[in-house]
Amino acid sequence: MSVTVLGLGQMGTALADAFLAAGHPTTVWNRSAGKADGPVARGAALAGGAAEAVAASPLVVVCLSTYDVVREVLADSAGTLRGRTLVNLTSGSPEQARETADWAAGHGIDYVDGAIMSTPPGIGNSAIMLLYSGSPAAFAAHEGTLRSLGDAVHLGDDAGTASLYDTALLGMMWATLGGWLQGVALTGADGIAATAFTPVAVRWLTAVSGFMSTYAPQIDAGAYPGDDATLDVHLASVEHLVHASAARGLDVELPGLFKAFMEQGIAAGYGGDSYARLIDVVRNGGRA
Amino acid sequence: MSVTVLGLGQMGTALADAFLAAGHPTTVWNRSAGKADGPVARGAALAGGAAEAVAASPLVVVCLSTYDVVREVLADSAGTLRGRTLVNLTSGSPEQARETADWAAGHGIDYVDGAIMSTPPGIGNSAIMLLYSGSPAAFAAHEGTLRSLGDAVHLGDDAGTASLYDTALLGMMWATLGGWLQGVALTGADGIAATAFTPVAVRWLTAVSGFMSTYAPQIDAGAYPGDDATLDVHLASVEHLVHASAARGLDVELPGLFKAFMEQGIAAGYGGDSYARLIDVVRNGGRA
Repeated sequence: MSVTVLGLGQMGTALADAFLAAGHPTTVWNRSAGKADGPVARGAALAGGAAEAVAASPLVVVCLSTYDVVREVLADSAGTLRGRTLVNLTSGSPEQARETADWAAGHGIDYVDGAIMSTPPGIGNSAIMLLYSGSPAAFAAHEGTLRSLGDAVHLGDDAGTASLYDTALLGMMWATLGGWLQGVALTGADGIAATAFTPVAVRWLTAVSGFMSTYAPQIDAGAYPGDDATLDVHLASVEHLVHASAARGLDVELPGLFKAFMEQGIAAGYGGDSYARLIDVVRNGGRA
Repeated sequence: MSVTVLGLGQMGTALADAFLAAGHPTTVWNRSAGKADGPVARGAALAGGAAEAVAASPLVVVCLSTYDVVREVLADSAGTLRGRTLVNLTSGSPEQARETADWAAGHGIDYVDGAIMSTPPGIGNSAIMLLYSGSPAAFAAHEGTLRSLGDAVHLGDDAGTASLYDTALLGMMWATLGGWLQGVALTGADGIAATAFTPVAVRWLTAVSGFMSTYAPQIDAGAYPGDDATLDVHLASVEHLVHASAARGLDVELPGLFKAFMEQGIAAGYGGDSYARLIDVVRNGGRA
């Protein structure tokens, strides 16, 4: 299956290279010249313009700096895109993805939006995730080709879902890394190396994943039995973290925020419920 | 190998039951009567007092409400404990563990402190972790017996280390669950079930674990190459999370805190460094 890649920044170049490595005839184009030299040296065909690039393949993958640039670049190619599949891997918001899906629908273009959960060096590794949402038929038709880039996870027909997951997962990443940094600083203050603490932390994350899997159906059901550990019990433990951090001169804002969340949940009458009940605090903008 | 368990709350009872299930002759005692009925029905010997319980086994495991209660309960048994191993699985601070280790050393008692990274129903499952620190020789002598409770991880000879890891790992748990709740609320606002989002989130945590393993040696080396994603790049993405959360009426304190950390790091001149550089923000009490 031939494929076209528009946009040859670091990520676009990695995408083109992964398609080439998997044996797909690959056509590339970039607004500014010179960026195509690498992929062309590795076997890509260079198109003379966006419309020519689009015309070369039934599958067109775009990875540009912003959604505005996507619309600019594709402005004169809408007719050529009709009946083809456009997979947009540009970073943006769910709203931007939905607007672009509407534009595509208006021109008879099959549209799939996507988010790449990796940095460019990971592209081509089947362990990394690329999240897709939008036309299920277009995704199914090109899933085999898209799997050249990494594992391909389709999240449903709302084009905005992939971006929404992307944002949510990055939030989880910052949170987890924030908690890890607090732990590294805490243990490091007592002379423990980050490389000693981290393997135990990595292993512990597997247990935390188990808690998430236990709590997810509680949230969907709106029932939060505190049969493992209640918010009251968590509040007693979080004091240790705040105290141990303060005693070592560390930042206490992150532990303090968890403590405040727990206190808000308990004030709302949820002290005997599981940790998952804090979803109500998050949902209500901090006002339980 | 015979073992004694002092303290038969929910956790102590689970510990005694796991030793019994693994075939270890188990002696139990609890300050208030009646708590021993379950373990005794399952084969445990009931001692008439703490000193009698201690005298029954070379390995004495205590799991009480606080370190003060441990010292009270053992006050008259110090002589009997001489030459035996005391494993203290009571929850407390590193400082309390170190004080108890000093007391034990003063009485010729081999001391190991520990932290149980599980709720009582997990005890006996080899997938859960019990963290130990203190006398390496005493741990090695009883490791086989202790493995009846779950995986046994020894963290070095400082008795305070297990409690410190416990505190650090709970902090990571709250952080990760906090980020997950934010993601559940964000995707849930657009109609996605927690049970749909969570399997992707669990999978993503594996990638985040990989980032931690990449960043740990950076922290030990004090060098933070921004070759995957720089703080400048993260700051651009975190705006999406703050905006998407606010647009859905969700709490923005957690995303706002990450953003503030990134801004502090960038203000300190670290914009081109990796996320791990934020350890300096955490270490300096929020003043980069």
